[in-house]
Amino acid sequence: MSTAQYTINETHDPSFRSWVESATPESGFALQNLPYLVFSNSGGERRVGVRIGDEILDIVKALDTDLFSGDARLAAAACRGGVLNGLSALSPHHWSSLRKALFDLLRLEDKRSLVAEALVPLSSVQLHLPFEIKNYTDFYASIDHATNIGRLIRPDNPLLPNYKYVPIGYHGRASSVHVTPSSVVRPMGQRKGPQEEFPSFGPCRFMDYEIELGVFIGGGNQLGERVSINKAESMLFGFCLVNDWSARDIQAWEYQPLGPFLAKSFSTTVSPYVVTAEALLPFRSELSRGEGEPSPLPYLDSPFNREQGAFDVEVQVHLRTKKMKEMNLDPHCLSVGNAKSLYWSFAQFVTHHTSNGCNLMPGDLLASGTISGPTPDSWGSMMELTKRGESPIELPTSEARRSLEDFDEVIMSGSARREGYATVSLGECRGVVTPAAE
Amino acid sequence: MSTAQYTINETHDPSFRSWVESATPESGFALQNLPYLVFSNSGGERRVGVRIGDEILDIVKALDTDLFSGDARLAAAACRGGVLNGLSALSPHHWSSLRKALFDLLRLEDKRSLVAEALVPLSSVQLHLPFEIKNYTDFYASIDHATNIGRLIRPDNPLLPNYKYVPIGYHGRASSVHVTPSSVVRPMGQRKGPQEEFPSFGPCRFMDYEIELGVFIGGGNQLGERVSINKAESMLFGFCLVNDWSARDIQAWEYQPLGPFLAKSFSTTVSPYVVTAEALLPFRSELSRGEGEPSPLPYLDSPFNREQGAFDVEVQVHLRTKKMKEMNLDPHCLSVGNAKSLYWSFAQFVTHHTSNGCNLMPGDLLASGTISGPTPDSWGSMMELTKRGESPIELPTSEARRSLEDFDEVIMSGSARREGYATVSLGECRGVVTPAAE
Repeated sequence: MSTAQYTINETHDPSFRSWVESATPESGFALQNLPYLVFSNSGGERRVGVRIGDEILDIVKALDTDLFSGDARLAAAACRGGVLNGLSALSPHHWSSLRKALFDLLRLEDKRSLVAEALVPLSSVQLHLPFEIKNYTDFYASIDHATNIGRLIRPDNPLLPNYKYVPIGYHGRASSVHVTPSSVVRPMGQRKGPQEEFPSFGPCRFMDYEIELGVFIGGGNQLGERVSINKAESMLFGFCLVNDWSARDIQAWEYQPLGPFLAKSFSTTVSPYVVTAEALLPFRSELSRGEGEPSPLPYLDSPFNREQGAFDVEVQVHLRTKKMKEMNLDPHCLSVGNAKSLYWSFAQFVTHHTSNGCNLMPGDLLASGTISGPTPDSWGSMMELTKRGESPIELPTSEARRSLEDFDEVIMSGSARREGYATVSLGECRGVVTPAAE
Repeated sequence: MSTAQYTINETHDPSFRSWVESATPESGFALQNLPYLVFSNSGGERRVGVRIGDEILDIVKALDTDLFSGDARLAAAACRGGVLNGLSALSPHHWSSLRKALFDLLRLEDKRSLVAEALVPLSSVQLHLPFEIKNYTDFYASIDHATNIGRLIRPDNPLLPNYKYVPIGYHGRASSVHVTPSSVVRPMGQRKGPQEEFPSFGPCRFMDYEIELGVFIGGGNQLGERVSINKAESMLFGFCLVNDWSARDIQAWEYQPLGPFLAKSFSTTVSPYVVTAEALLPFRSELSRGEGEPSPLPYLDSPFNREQGAFDVEVQVHLRTKKMKEMNLDPHCLSVGNAKSLYWSFAQFVTHHTSNGCNLMPGDLLASGTISGPTPDSWGSMMELTKRGESPIELPTSEARRSLEDFDEVIMSGSARREGYATVSLGECRGVVTPAAE
């Protein structure tokens, strides 16, 4: 299809196996995934790598050993500097060349001993934020989430009239995005309960998470340049999990008329792996729109976007309380959702975002908004699961949760699975709530 | 006062004059101002300078001629790199040392010939964005503006209940902030008129400006660290004018529930001069709150903030249409406002912004929101002046304006004046609307 930037090729073929033994098809980090990351070991400089099984290939070390040639070499050279902005500033052609080169290096035997010298065990390193994130935009693309939230505020008219036409989004705070695992301090802020005459300043009383999928922008556009829905695909560099931590009581009091501000800006946690759009190619799926939905306006519509605009990526949220840790219990599953249920696609995010001429930059993060499906077992925030705290969640420890409590750990995970293909894991995004610093 | 970071000193004394002849007390760019800027000449590299009269002192050239010593030398060295982020990352003590050194170099005769060699005529250079702006936040601090806008939407209840407690703000788009003079392409976008059944995509039908005052952050805080109202003063590095261009029809359709997005992100224009907080010290004034207003919550309150939290800076907006240019007419004055009328102070912006632990970075831009006063001649946007387009503005050319038309030029200016002190100009912020690129 002319609008696709890639086609399924040998790098998606599950019969190819890496000589790295831990990179099994079931591991999520087989040869077919090859997610990028930034790592350092024992206080050393930050370096760009790619995960394979339980190992990391140090791309710049491999470059210095002369393991790349041609466009792959150019792409590997863009990994100097310890951040992925340089690589993402190149083109899909370069990204694809590097992927193919990495695929061959980790599969073929001819350079195995040299490549092995550039491998580092994952367990020996620290992972860092993969990009210098210049701008962060958060969308609101799950119609089930928007309806659930709307119903809590406007029971008779949950979905606003613009929702089915505008991919609703807002500018988020870039400086407070950080990588998993994180300790998230319960924020202080202004809040006013329905029974309170005046607001007060104190620790957040309704701490929440939101599970989202994020895309890091590749390439970019100049100020004033619009990006068509077909071209937008070429600006999706790679994906991560996002926990959009939310202070619901602060949000309820502050958000009119300019939207969420301090309710979100205290912390946003992302997973460390950047799973490329090319790795996710076998998992593209039809964009989900029910019968009778209005067509998107022409600038947001294309056959490719309708037929393959979505990503079939399952996302899970688990909760582990302090008591569960003490009792050595497994985390409790709160929800299982899927990004293919989003009403708007990532390409539509890019096209809408640039439709007024706004310039996107390499490494900008665009997140989906909470991923919720039609049934409660797929709802991606505690706000929805507990109906704004009215219906507590019962946990196996006999504990109950109306919202997150101090020392609760939220564990998000994501993966793409399809019969006949190797599983592609997005890894985990973990964070523990710690007490407010009053 | 212990909370003030500076005290009035000899650098504010108008009896001191520079040997640069154009730097008269009336020029707005006398020895008492010394605003920073970034410039280049004929394709050369970007350099940090300070404006004096009609000249620019090239700070790094002066440094390389060994004109600084001690902390001023350290501060001047932070100006290497062609952007002000390095200098702003230092402390008020360093900023003050450099100001005093510049004051002496441009006043005393002893090093005059060496200093003169580092001067460049303003007319020979190009000015650039003074900072790499990592994050941009826009507040909504004029109660008159909030009331005017609220009245257009909710005539019976114009001001929302949170307004007098929360310094309302939202995350703006950092990538599309650029320096004056600018051509601003009329944005395309989704809009739906009240009589239209469905939205459509096309050129903005209600293009507007907003005059604001912005502060560039100095120092910064770590994620999780709150900044007290007293400490906040030390993070106000310097000020500029901001034109927050707005597409009102796009805004009306998109802004619920997450706030303005594409209605603002197509362009934000700032003036080129960064007028330091120290230069504005003589123009500090009482924070404006009418009788019977609620006290700010304690975290947003201090005696210093009440008594000297505001800045007495007058801001003017002029309009020049294509016809005015053709007829060689002077620009038409649309409004004269003053930043001292803001309901919230810049220190309160910083304290509120960081109250949840959000980290501010050197060079972050925090803007005030539209500056409007109580009377129509002080209203800082066309939305207010024309009552959402219902009452056209009559121009001396017999033209009328319900909103900005193509080729209209908006000219913003600002200055601080006080009996017994040299005038401190903020310069100009200009932009011409150009036709949509369909």
